[in-house]
Amino acid sequence: MTGKPLAAIVSAGLSRFGKLDGLSAREIFQQAGKEAFDRCPNLDPRKDIKALFVGHMMESTEHQGHTGPMVADWLGLNPIPASRTENACASSGVALRCGIQAVASGLADTVIVGGVEKQTHLPTSDTTEYLALSADNFFEQWHGFTFPALFALIARAHMHEYGTREEHLAMIAVKNHSNGSKNPKAHIQKEITVEQAMTSRIVASPLKLFDCSLISDGASCVILTRPELAKKFADNPVYVLGSGQASDTIGLYEREDLTSLKASILASREAYKMAGIEPKDVDVAEVHDCFTIAELVAYEDLGFCAKGDGGRLIESGETKLTGSIPVNTSGGLKSKGHPVGATGVAQAYEVYLQLTGQADHRQVKDPEIGLTHNVGGHGSTSVVHVYKTSK
Amino acid sequence: MTGKPLAAIVSAGLSRFGKLDGLSAREIFQQAGKEAFDRCPNLDPRKDIKALFVGHMMESTEHQGHTGPMVADWLGLNPIPASRTENACASSGVALRCGIQAVASGLADTVIVGGVEKQTHLPTSDTTEYLALSADNFFEQWHGFTFPALFALIARAHMHEYGTREEHLAMIAVKNHSNGSKNPKAHIQKEITVEQAMTSRIVASPLKLFDCSLISDGASCVILTRPELAKKFADNPVYVLGSGQASDTIGLYEREDLTSLKASILASREAYKMAGIEPKDVDVAEVHDCFTIAELVAYEDLGFCAKGDGGRLIESGETKLTGSIPVNTSGGLKSKGHPVGATGVAQAYEVYLQLTGQADHRQVKDPEIGLTHNVGGHGSTSVVHVYKTSK
Repeated sequence: MTGKPLAAIVSAGLSRFGKLDGLSAREIFQQAGKEAFDRCPNLDPRKDIKALFVGHMMESTEHQGHTGPMVADWLGLNPIPASRTENACASSGVALRCGIQAVASGLADTVIVGGVEKQTHLPTSDTTEYLALSADNFFEQWHGFTFPALFALIARAHMHEYGTREEHLAMIAVKNHSNGSKNPKAHIQKEITVEQAMTSRIVASPLKLFDCSLISDGASCVILTRPELAKKFADNPVYVLGSGQASDTIGLYEREDLTSLKASILASREAYKMAGIEPKDVDVAEVHDCFTIAELVAYEDLGFCAKGDGGRLIESGETKLTGSIPVNTSGGLKSKGHPVGATGVAQAYEVYLQLTGQADHRQVKDPEIGLTHNVGGHGSTSVVHVYKTSK
Repeated sequence: MTGKPLAAIVSAGLSRFGKLDGLSAREIFQQAGKEAFDRCPNLDPRKDIKALFVGHMMESTEHQGHTGPMVADWLGLNPIPASRTENACASSGVALRCGIQAVASGLADTVIVGGVEKQTHLPTSDTTEYLALSADNFFEQWHGFTFPALFALIARAHMHEYGTREEHLAMIAVKNHSNGSKNPKAHIQKEITVEQAMTSRIVASPLKLFDCSLISDGASCVILTRPELAKKFADNPVYVLGSGQASDTIGLYEREDLTSLKASILASREAYKMAGIEPKDVDVAEVHDCFTIAELVAYEDLGFCAKGDGGRLIESGETKLTGSIPVNTSGGLKSKGHPVGATGVAQAYEVYLQLTGQADHRQVKDPEIGLTHNVGGHGSTSVVHVYKTSK
């Protein structure tokens, strides 16, 4: 547990997640930026911030690309370098890694990294179609596959291979909605029961309505600096100890195994190695629950339990707020919401709050090591980061 | 002229540029990758390449996002981290800078950086609409502004302020078509005359057909490594001495001055400073001639001549192949073509060929310092890199 930090997070901001009618992406990103600036009075944004990286997935929803300079200007940061990354739902996980590389390279001492998505103003069918751009057009999209269908295949395979049950998936939904009910920025802030989840309407069997994450608007950001400069800006910086990213085929049909995401295994192993930790050292984690099955598979891919034991882990209660490895304390994509471009850095925001004791009613007791796990598509991209308190 | 190199280019590849019917973006990128691999026999791509960054602008043209893992897999590089950047027509200039930061950060010793675009299969009106996503939707696109119109405003302002004439713009088209006629990969390989350019049909006055760059398919890549490792892979690496990037407003209407691109001035000054050179040290340059006026303005913004003297510089002949500062030896976006996501790294490809003496009939005599200048939108992004031979 003694990896040399790559960078330090000295502030973070998050917009409200949900259906943000009347606000455009640039305005939503401002909300996140303003919180981060307000939280860090020692930082002079126009003087100190040297670059911006923003994850943004779908340029079609607002007919607006070139997101980098746009949000930089609307945050008052023109003319700093401002770059957009797009790796589907891992767009801002990748932005975070690019920001870390910028800081670690010496080309920029302090950077702002974030993500944004505006998608609730369109008919769901349009958004679903745009989301499908992360899958393989020629061999999957074209046949009508959408993401619920692709993750339903993963769920079926896992149930067949390891005896995972639909109730296990429902338990993940119940846990995440419980956490989300304690998060004032979550898209849906209400608890649900296993029975409600089990009897909700089928989307793509075995996935039902409550197995699916939400279509949300939202934005997120963190401010990163060189570890040596962290205390200049914050008393309680959070250090990034490890960063891992890996890829897999753009088509699910090409995979040898549907029951795990190889990219998540590889990315987490890289991040753990860099951080000098093991999975059991993680005290709090935000994982990519775009569907409940994705969280269950993540338990295994990230090494929180053995392969095939995901169902038993959720059943044990250990991933609840009070368990030994609380997962998705924010409510996750399931309840907090999933403004796709914003999700990766929104996970870092939650871990930042947890590791600095600012998570209020959902605060985990004295966590020291945090983890974020951000997946693009059905695991064609996975990005994992490991964080540590300054204690 | 003694900046410490940030990274070294040890190989490069370029697809044919043009209307590549029957080939998809992933296949076009393979052409560029294969050339780079073939050119570098000491490199074992699957073993040595640790990350990929790809610039890709328009996900709508093939209904395909998540370009990073897709092109990585089709190059045989799965499961390395593979990230897409999008900054309009500067998408791969930004990818190049991200790749440099990855190498300089120590997170990846050797990376492949490239760009790709597939756009000729659509009606021109669709492509024009998608290209307009780089401008401000709410305040420009929405009113019907397309890029020829926006650059026509810049041209009018420059003509008004500095007496620049339409003939100056035509001379740039003539020079670039002459260079492109010597480039076997160029989209259009034929010379034109000033008279042809001046009498071509008006697109957005004062810009005529021959003032506009081409809508092309194509892909580009370079292989970057740490300077210390360069000689392991190549006898004649090209060193990246400086990298600059800057932003400006997403709306042209917000600018104080239409006759220069502030982002280009700032990005070039940063790159020059990092490289320890001055504009007069540049021996060969690829600049972003999306329209002829853009090259003329670039002469001034990059410091190749004084403000307002762009017309006099093209008239002097000094930017021709045989001049003191040859510009767009490849033919530029005007004649080589402009597959937007590929353009930034295609410029680096040309400078790599020039600095290693591989530019055949368009070879400049013994250049030592090269420069690339890649613009997104109407200068909302500008990325400038400075290169040096290993001599």
